[in-house]
Amino acid sequence: MEIITQVKEMQKRVEVYRNAGKSVGFVPTMGALHEGHFSLMRQARKDNDLVIISIFVNPLQFGPGEDYECYPKDLDRDRELAEEVGVDIIFAPPPKEMYPQTSSTFVEVERLSEGICGRDRPGHFRGVATVVTKLFNITKPHRVYFGQKDYQQALIIKRMIEDLNFDMEFVLMPIIREEDGLAMSSRNTYLNQREREQALILYRSLKKAEELLDGGERRSEVILEEIREMISKEDIAQIDYIGLYHPETLAEIETVEQEALIALAVRIGKTRLIDNLLWRKKSG
Amino acid sequence: MEIITQVKEMQKRVEVYRNAGKSVGFVPTMGALHEGHFSLMRQARKDNDLVIISIFVNPLQFGPGEDYECYPKDLDRDRELAEEVGVDIIFAPPPKEMYPQTSSTFVEVERLSEGICGRDRPGHFRGVATVVTKLFNITKPHRVYFGQKDYQQALIIKRMIEDLNFDMEFVLMPIIREEDGLAMSSRNTYLNQREREQALILYRSLKKAEELLDGGERRSEVILEEIREMISKEDIAQIDYIGLYHPETLAEIETVEQEALIALAVRIGKTRLIDNLLWRKKSG
Repeated sequence: MEIITQVKEMQKRVEVYRNAGKSVGFVPTMGALHEGHFSLMRQARKDNDLVIISIFVNPLQFGPGEDYECYPKDLDRDRELAEEVGVDIIFAPPPKEMYPQTSSTFVEVERLSEGICGRDRPGHFRGVATVVTKLFNITKPHRVYFGQKDYQQALIIKRMIEDLNFDMEFVLMPIIREEDGLAMSSRNTYLNQREREQALILYRSLKKAEELLDGGERRSEVILEEIREMISKEDIAQIDYIGLYHPETLAEIETVEQEALIALAVRIGKTRLIDNLLWRKKSG
Repeated sequence: MEIITQVKEMQKRVEVYRNAGKSVGFVPTMGALHEGHFSLMRQARKDNDLVIISIFVNPLQFGPGEDYECYPKDLDRDRELAEEVGVDIIFAPPPKEMYPQTSSTFVEVERLSEGICGRDRPGHFRGVATVVTKLFNITKPHRVYFGQKDYQQALIIKRMIEDLNFDMEFVLMPIIREEDGLAMSSRNTYLNQREREQALILYRSLKKAEELLDGGERRSEVILEEIREMISKEDIAQIDYIGLYHPETLAEIETVEQEALIALAVRIGKTRLIDNLLWRKKSG
């Protein structure tokens, strides 16, 4: 396995593989790798001749007061783990290589970027769409892999690929959870023991909503009221948002019909965690 | 020569050429081809194994009340002329193929898009940057060719290529003029005889500014005052803007030093024409 830090070198290298008829799979990450990331890499390994991942903590997608400065970094550990999973190339550029001072081009996916996390984090998805466009142009993959944990992000990138005619296949992979249900996230490392326990409320909320939907409840407000009450019992948990959304448009749903995305962001102490569950009416 | 109208087919086709080690040159156009376009195609022909041009009148870059509906179209003539110049493939998609209803992703080049033409035509350069990104992803060129006539557009695309890490070479080609000096433009066909005569005022203005600069005048305001007076003598000419700008940043220049872009937009009757001249201090 190799680490490449320069844009031009990465482009030259991948071009050689492509011209030799090799298929290229790409997994963008911000490092601090966990089982969620590995599940994407393993799928990329199965589907492609060459697997590239990027490790780049993208300043453009963090807002003021967010955790850009202290986002967990451990390239040595990431490198070892990525190699075990069978990654061929890690693209790990320094920030100046990705954003020289003159940079002033941005990619925006309207509508989908506005609600849910986009409301709490203005400019976040613009930063994501811009860096992902750059990474696609640098790693030139045939297939790209994103996790359902960041559902809105995945939907935005999928739309962007379609709208801007990127010639690549988008692959969405399921959420990977700890044994007790907590969704894997690099930010889980921020949690102390008490916070770690209360963080379970995210998944428990989603399961509660699922149970109510399975039981025939269709009114979003009734479902959300019940969940809000559950969460309010955790003394250090604070809701950023919680809602039922159309899985394609992310429009809020009042009355659930065939399917719904249940999504939430909750602050556990200072750590903002997100989770979601895609509910579909069981047939028959 | 072939005409391709579908995105996926164009991508598949160009991929075959690239994988065979062929270099690809690309010239985006809105059709109504003239000598300006042909000079780009001839250069592309010299530099590359395969030459692709696109013919697509991009609705996204026209504002309300602009000439989208009546923009000159003659695919049969364009096809013949392109073939004579040695073009291999014309990519000519219908509008719905480029913009399905769900499309909501936009590319923006900040700062450079704001002044000059950007002030008169809000959203214009966003439309240009977005469609050019799409066309780059569809035709996957090694080299792309733009004309200096649309100087601001060329500068924006050059910046976008750098910022978004498109792996391609940007080639800028000089303005091609009629014998009497009028810059070639598809919009020249709108002019009647009297307008055609008065349209010469654009080039004459630029030459006047050049003469003043060569003669040692360095104050933009003095130069512009003189030109404005020249233009005001043409009874159907109306200035949209005229100015001296930094050739890289497009910032307005008060006192010219080593170089300046002299650029202007003038309405001749209902037709908006643009032209420019890059002035550099002669050494020695």
